[in-house]
Amino acid sequence: MAETEVAQVRFGIVGCANIVRKVARAINLAPNSILHAIASRSIDKAKRFASDNGLDPRVKIYGSYDQLLDDPSVDAVYMPLPTSLHVHWAVMAAQKGKHVLIEKPTTLDVGELDTILEACQSNGLQFMDGSMWLHHPRTVKMKEMLFDSKLLGDVNYIYSTSTTSASPEFFENDIRVKGNLDSLGALGDLGWYCLGAVLWAKNYQLPTVVTALPDVTTNSDGVIISCSASIQYKEPSSSGATTNAIIHCSFLADTSMDLTITGSKGSLNLNDFIIPQRESSASFEFTLGAKFVDLHIGWNVKPKRVVVNCDELPQEGLMVEEFTRIVAGIRTTPGVLPDPKWPEISRKTQMLVDAVKKSVDLGCKPVYF
Amino acid sequence: MAETEVAQVRFGIVGCANIVRKVARAINLAPNSILHAIASRSIDKAKRFASDNGLDPRVKIYGSYDQLLDDPSVDAVYMPLPTSLHVHWAVMAAQKGKHVLIEKPTTLDVGELDTILEACQSNGLQFMDGSMWLHHPRTVKMKEMLFDSKLLGDVNYIYSTSTTSASPEFFENDIRVKGNLDSLGALGDLGWYCLGAVLWAKNYQLPTVVTALPDVTTNSDGVIISCSASIQYKEPSSSGATTNAIIHCSFLADTSMDLTITGSKGSLNLNDFIIPQRESSASFEFTLGAKFVDLHIGWNVKPKRVVVNCDELPQEGLMVEEFTRIVAGIRTTPGVLPDPKWPEISRKTQMLVDAVKKSVDLGCKPVYF
Repeated sequence: MAETEVAQVRFGIVGCANIVRKVARAINLAPNSILHAIASRSIDKAKRFASDNGLDPRVKIYGSYDQLLDDPSVDAVYMPLPTSLHVHWAVMAAQKGKHVLIEKPTTLDVGELDTILEACQSNGLQFMDGSMWLHHPRTVKMKEMLFDSKLLGDVNYIYSTSTTSASPEFFENDIRVKGNLDSLGALGDLGWYCLGAVLWAKNYQLPTVVTALPDVTTNSDGVIISCSASIQYKEPSSSGATTNAIIHCSFLADTSMDLTITGSKGSLNLNDFIIPQRESSASFEFTLGAKFVDLHIGWNVKPKRVVVNCDELPQEGLMVEEFTRIVAGIRTTPGVLPDPKWPEISRKTQMLVDAVKKSVDLGCKPVYF
Repeated sequence: MAETEVAQVRFGIVGCANIVRKVARAINLAPNSILHAIASRSIDKAKRFASDNGLDPRVKIYGSYDQLLDDPSVDAVYMPLPTSLHVHWAVMAAQKGKHVLIEKPTTLDVGELDTILEACQSNGLQFMDGSMWLHHPRTVKMKEMLFDSKLLGDVNYIYSTSTTSASPEFFENDIRVKGNLDSLGALGDLGWYCLGAVLWAKNYQLPTVVTALPDVTTNSDGVIISCSASIQYKEPSSSGATTNAIIHCSFLADTSMDLTITGSKGSLNLNDFIIPQRESSASFEFTLGAKFVDLHIGWNVKPKRVVVNCDELPQEGLMVEEFTRIVAGIRTTPGVLPDPKWPEISRKTQMLVDAVKKSVDLGCKPVYF
């Protein structure tokens, strides 16, 4: 195989959920990847999806997931299936030698995720979940300004939301509110991002204790449609500070994607941390050492807006690029192993999701790590 | 007495705390008020305060609070004393026929506050607490846009913070961390605003239940220096929605004054709701019906920034103007009674403060209304 062929990672997409349109576009935009095949449980649905979305006629269309996984030309799969199906199909994919890019929440619990991660690891395959915002240059910039340069001081408080006002049809029909398909509901679909943001802001340190707050709403299937949680880091940092975080996820409130991080010396604030308002450029506000002016009639500093361009590739394209960079490395260079960073991020996020779920199930009792 | 003299409300200030400088300025700026006298427990301290702050030489200086309250020319008092002293001195002031403008927290608990309110009511006197932000035209504008016109839909979620990174000297010496002077600590000093904002956003409806969150920090005196609470409105609105709020107050994190209100149809966001960053103009962001554009690669609407000028009087001046407008009405027009709105706002806010304190004392157990 010529090197250019090897470097091009051929994706198979398992499932035709709505989000596939965005990720298929990203696979086409990213430099090292190509969309090779898509599969649905019905060939008609897969064909309709391909024609509705103007997929390249060379993309192979399969009427079953098995057929796609048996295609030796598929190097990697992108898997946007209902969460309850992830463990079966991701393990199957790994057993057939496919690298795995999977939608969040990764699985129903960390036990299932470990089954997938073991299958990937024993077959030398990369695993990554679809938390696209981690790949945005704004996210990288925030990390650099706040943590690597310690401008913010010790992180004292984190607040993160992901809410969306779902329609009556959604509550009736969407897989994300069905107990047998996606029993994590809003916690898995939206809270995943908030909990991931807390971990990100704490450099992937696990907390001491997680407690669901009393404002839990579930539907008749027992699926969480709105909840909040307190996440506490009780072990003090070198300067004695501890960290507390609040997350809130809901299908009941209008769209919000707030992330606020307050440290001892400054704070950071943005209201679109998951999907930036504009694709090609995003911003955040940053306030350093705010005090009140004499008489307390104003602030000595105003928030600074930091704008970060994202015009070469959208964040999903950057995610695919990072994934395929690792996959291409594994495929072309003997001895190169999968990057453990991404499965570790997924696993810790899933652990926090599990802890919130457990606390909800226990009537908001604290769950210790 | 000529009508112009009657309309001019003569203030006596009981105490020389730092905040007096701001409120003395507001009394001078507001059209219907004049600073008549100040008192400290020591005449030397009061004199030094007057000269340090360039007070008009005609302002009377008293070396005891009693002397000021005995001055028949004083119509109203402004009282910035340590919280534990409020009940004694505010009742004394009312008994001597003075209208009462008092710093927050109003008292250590609602029982004490009721003693003050009864003294004011039985003497036909106006009571108001120093929640200056309620008088800012931005606050009025937000109310108009969001609630009166129902642009936001049902309020689903409220998040409010008031934090400040206090110095080691503050933790050593400030009255706000001393158990015998201000046992409510950060909850009374900062949380008062957050709880007031929740009530404001709910048109002063009381919640169903208040629960302190596990992230409470107290000092060696048992005074709260950082805490959070969940406030739940379980009674559904006409459309079936309930409301949940989270507040966070802390002397441990850098300055923040965030208020986010998310409804079924929109959201509102500002980061300086208590003390605007600039005195003469303030703003908030408002997002209505945010959805994602096709492919979920951006938002269909961007937040709108609404700017509200505040150039005639600062918010403390507007507070004094509102207070003296009522007081002048009572004094000049027979049959005019105090406005019950302001003591009701104070009382409900104090009830929420008490509930959070009780929940903290009970180890974060829920406290029902």
